[in-house]
Amino acid sequence: MSLPVYLDHNATTPLDPAVLAAMLPWLESRFGNPSSRHGWGRAARQAVDEARQRVAAAVGAHPTEVLFTSGGSEANNLFIKGAAASLKPGGIAFGAGEHPCVLKPAAQLARQGWRLYPVAVDAHGRVDSAAYAGALAAKPALLSFMLANNETGVLSDVAALAVQARTDGGWFHSDAVQALGKLPLDFRALNAAGVHALTISAHKAGGPKGAAALVVDKRVELQPLIAGGGHERGLRSGTENVPAIVGFGVAAEMAAQRVGERPRRLLALRERLETALAALGATIFGTGAARLANTSYFALAGIDGETLVGKLDREGFAVASGAACSSANPEPSHVLQAMGVASEIARGAVRISLGAGNTEADIDEFINALRVTVGRLQGLAAVAA
Amino acid sequence: MSLPVYLDHNATTPLDPAVLAAMLPWLESRFGNPSSRHGWGRAARQAVDEARQRVAAAVGAHPTEVLFTSGGSEANNLFIKGAAASLKPGGIAFGAGEHPCVLKPAAQLARQGWRLYPVAVDAHGRVDSAAYAGALAAKPALLSFMLANNETGVLSDVAALAVQARTDGGWFHSDAVQALGKLPLDFRALNAAGVHALTISAHKAGGPKGAAALVVDKRVELQPLIAGGGHERGLRSGTENVPAIVGFGVAAEMAAQRVGERPRRLLALRERLETALAALGATIFGTGAARLANTSYFALAGIDGETLVGKLDREGFAVASGAACSSANPEPSHVLQAMGVASEIARGAVRISLGAGNTEADIDEFINALRVTVGRLQGLAAVAA
Repeated sequence: MSLPVYLDHNATTPLDPAVLAAMLPWLESRFGNPSSRHGWGRAARQAVDEARQRVAAAVGAHPTEVLFTSGGSEANNLFIKGAAASLKPGGIAFGAGEHPCVLKPAAQLARQGWRLYPVAVDAHGRVDSAAYAGALAAKPALLSFMLANNETGVLSDVAALAVQARTDGGWFHSDAVQALGKLPLDFRALNAAGVHALTISAHKAGGPKGAAALVVDKRVELQPLIAGGGHERGLRSGTENVPAIVGFGVAAEMAAQRVGERPRRLLALRERLETALAALGATIFGTGAARLANTSYFALAGIDGETLVGKLDREGFAVASGAACSSANPEPSHVLQAMGVASEIARGAVRISLGAGNTEADIDEFINALRVTVGRLQGLAAVAA
Repeated sequence: MSLPVYLDHNATTPLDPAVLAAMLPWLESRFGNPSSRHGWGRAARQAVDEARQRVAAAVGAHPTEVLFTSGGSEANNLFIKGAAASLKPGGIAFGAGEHPCVLKPAAQLARQGWRLYPVAVDAHGRVDSAAYAGALAAKPALLSFMLANNETGVLSDVAALAVQARTDGGWFHSDAVQALGKLPLDFRALNAAGVHALTISAHKAGGPKGAAALVVDKRVELQPLIAGGGHERGLRSGTENVPAIVGFGVAAEMAAQRVGERPRRLLALRERLETALAALGATIFGTGAARLANTSYFALAGIDGETLVGKLDREGFAVASGAACSSANPEPSHVLQAMGVASEIARGAVRISLGAGNTEADIDEFINALRVTVGRLQGLAAVAA
């Protein structure tokens, strides 16, 4: 039997061996606290500084614009609640398909008197122009629109959205967690268009869990979520996770180097996959919009997504039935609901997200397994009917 | 020349090789996201669950009382701001010598209408009884008193403090970051006395940076600092840092196993050290109180602490001039100021914090280096005078 095949890179990615190699010294002899003044501490401080430079260079930012956090959820919360804490309660606009770590902090702000402007998406998952214009009419003080959706892979032209919002003076943030390594990112260009902050995370791009960043225009006044010793320009206290930050630096650099080539290769694999899915009669979500090259999100009539994911797992294929972070939630995907997908179809949703290690053989084996599994499930359904 | 000697274990500790060995599979092939339903995800979920059991067992808590965070600063902020967000603004009492990651979130609460009751400490660094009684008279809704001070090592009898506070119904938290591995911790017993939450952190006890916990009585209503996918019972969202959490589990277990023996050995080393320090005419802080066995905090008349730390570093000895987390701050230690130590003495403060790897030879070499270095510095001072 072949080894299991990992097709769930939007949930997390394997750590690139070069990243782990870069981390190891910091897990072994170079264990200092960057705030310590002695040799161990100075070495750790230099490693964090170098990682900050690498991350900044990878996304076209200045190192002083990079605030390290423990993860993408923390970075999104830091922007939303940290910026809100410096403002009087106002409005916050965000896409209806944002990740829960944008939706939930926004809901927390609502209890502090903020007005929420969730912006509808169209049937393809793109921000709806009329709805967006309507939200802007309320002159929101904060805006958060993701660059690429974690479930569908659908892209938003956040530069264009920011340009539209710019005259009203709100702070515009974009969750770019799914974009790092999959699309070129240029914070300088985005910032010129009016994007004030980006969230990126190491473990979605060959780096370790435990390191992420809010890349943020220094004009945005933030209050720290984690206050204390004054790390990260006073905006995120706590001993730096040196090994993870070092790994993030290397992963971000490699992601930027490979982002010209890898998506083309993954796109060819996805076309191979989606041709077969179409032949099986699958509904593929978001195909009317620009999407990340690595992501395919589909449903097969009459087949429950959770069940299919479980069967495929036993066949050796790791796929997702929805966003990993909300897999504990039995409700159909809020992203698909926002796109107007009927619940009975949304419950069938399965996400394939490709990554560095995937090959044509993986796709062909997956398609074979899917055909057999779906045939069995449809046979069972026919018997039951 | 001998290898450098690390005497700064209160800042951070080397990762125990057994802890790193336990972490490595989770940095290599077992890279799944615990929220994923497939094999990789389930293995990661099981690893997080087992680590939670180990951490809980190490501190006498139930696994469901352990909330993993990215660090001690986050755990302290989560308790203070998370509990405050579930209450109407009231009073918060805390020791004057608390870590900045307690003092700063308390200051943030003050801007939301909370009243702060910083409680004075005596000349030995212990919570002052009369001052504490005075703070309790205000019936604070939140209390935070550290178990062991990071600079002086001075211990507080938090169970006794909690018993005194109990009738007024405030939530009592204790930062136990410096206690894990240095003192036995029994959350069940502390909880019975009225302690509702404890903060512990992996990297202070042979574990990795990036994992810590708030151990918390489930009656305490908390709002998440990091809201999102609903991880950690909805109280701390974000993909779990699986390798660090696994390492934390092993480190906590080892810390609990060794806590009977190690402090005795370190105490003997410290007595050897402090006998020599006394002979040099050092002022040793906190000697009138019970202290962590591993910590010695002292000053030598007329010698600047920062300068001495730098000279000792060049001689191959890693020590601290104050809490590592505030080393960027040129002000004399707020802990020593709270103890009534004059600024000119406090500026001389140097902290030695011993750990697993330290030997008698380390102490003897350190004392020799200190004698020579101090002799030179006093010679320079005599020439300058």
